[in-house]
Amino acid sequence: MNDLVKNLGTVKTNTMADAVEAQLRAYLKKMSFKPGDSLPKETELADALGVSRNVVREALSRLRMLGMIETRKRRGMVLVSPDILQAFERVLDPPIIDDATLEDIFELRLVIEMGLADLLFTRMKPADIEELETIAEQEVTHKSFQVKNEIAFHGKLYDMTGNATLKRFQIMLLPVFAHVTTHVDKHISGKVDHKGLVNILKKGSKEEFKKGMYEHLKPHFDRLK
Amino acid sequence: MNDLVKNLGTVKTNTMADAVEAQLRAYLKKMSFKPGDSLPKETELADALGVSRNVVREALSRLRMLGMIETRKRRGMVLVSPDILQAFERVLDPPIIDDATLEDIFELRLVIEMGLADLLFTRMKPADIEELETIAEQEVTHKSFQVKNEIAFHGKLYDMTGNATLKRFQIMLLPVFAHVTTHVDKHISGKVDHKGLVNILKKGSKEEFKKGMYEHLKPHFDRLK
Repeated sequence: MNDLVKNLGTVKTNTMADAVEAQLRAYLKKMSFKPGDSLPKETELADALGVSRNVVREALSRLRMLGMIETRKRRGMVLVSPDILQAFERVLDPPIIDDATLEDIFELRLVIEMGLADLLFTRMKPADIEELETIAEQEVTHKSFQVKNEIAFHGKLYDMTGNATLKRFQIMLLPVFAHVTTHVDKHISGKVDHKGLVNILKKGSKEEFKKGMYEHLKPHFDRLK
Repeated sequence: MNDLVKNLGTVKTNTMADAVEAQLRAYLKKMSFKPGDSLPKETELADALGVSRNVVREALSRLRMLGMIETRKRRGMVLVSPDILQAFERVLDPPIIDDATLEDIFELRLVIEMGLADLLFTRMKPADIEELETIAEQEVTHKSFQVKNEIAFHGKLYDMTGNATLKRFQIMLLPVFAHVTTHVDKHISGKVDHKGLVNILKKGSKEEFKKGMYEHLKPHFDRLK
C-alpha cells in the first residue's frame, strides 16, 4: 500500500489524504470519541481504515493543525476540544484573500459592531466604562496614534461583551479591516465620536447607543451603497 | 534527514510539522507568492527550507486542507485564494466543542442577527420580501416543520444582506444553534413573530425592525442574564 500511494503521484496522493482525513473524521465520530479520549495508534488506525500509515499520519497532522488532537506524555494521541479559531487564523492573510471576500469580512465587522449593544447593555460594568472613557480621551492628546486608539476603543467594546470568542475573532479580523480601509479616504469618522459613544453608555439608552454607533460607522455604511 | 525525522518519534515529528508549516508559510510570504503562482516542487522546497521531503509534504497537505494550495494539470502546485471558512467548517462539530465556546458562538449568532438591519435596509429588494413573506406564512399551515421554517426564515434574512460569506457562516453555525437550543425550553418565541418582522420590513423603519428583532430573540437574551 505504502509504495502504491507513493507511485500515484502528487495529484492522487492529495486526493488520498483528503479522503483519509474524511474517513478518520467519520471513524472518530462513529466510535463516539470524546475530548480527553486516547486515540488508537497510527498503525491501528491504518489497519482500521485500510490505508497506509503514511497517509494516516498526514491526516492526523491535519487534525492536529485544527487543534483536534494533541500528543501527551505516556498517553499518546488524545482527542481535544478544538480551538475553533486556530485554523481560521491561519488563512486570514489579506494579500491572498480575494477582494469580494475581504469586502464580505469588512461588512461582517460592521454587522457585529451594530449588534453588540444588547450584550453590552447586559454585561458592562462601571469599571469598563471608566476604562473606555480613558481610551476615548487619549484620542485628543495623541492625534498620531489614531489607528491604535481606534483598535483599543473598539477592542474594549468587544471585551465588555464578556464573549471571549467574539473578542478573539475581532483581533483576528483586524488585519482585514486595516487592509480594506487603506483603500478608503483617511480620517473618515462619523458624527458621533468615541467620547460621544461613551456618554451614551453612561447616560443613554440601548436604542440611543445603536443610533450613535450607526452614526459613528456611517462613512463605512455610505460606501456600501 | 529523512531517517532522523522518523526516529524522533511521534511527539517531535509533530512539533517538526508545525515548525515546517510555519516556515513554509513565512517562505511563501517572503517570496511574495500570490494566488495563481506556481509553487516550487516538493524537493526544491525541502532544499530551500533545509528539511526532509516527508515533512514538507505534511506541511503542504495542511495548506491544501486550508484551501491555500491546489494541484493543477501540467502546472503542479498553485497558490490559490483560500476559502476562508473551509477549515473552520471542519472543527464546528458541537460534540467536541467545549460548552463555553458553544455559548460564545450562540451569542455571536444573536449579535449578528441584531446587526443585520443596516445591511438589510440597504440591499433588500421587493422580491426578497415576497419570498420571506411566503416562508413566514408557511409557519401557520405546517406546525410540525417549525425548526426547518425557522432556519429558512432566518437564512433568507442573511441571504438578503447580499453577503455570501455571512450567509455561509450562518449555515455553518446552524448545528451549534440546534445543539444549544435543545437544552432550552421548546417553542420559545418572542412577542414579534416572523410575520411581524416581515410587516416591519414592508412598512416600518430600520429602528422598528431592530426593536422587532430584539423582541423576536428576547427569550434567548433573557437567558443570558
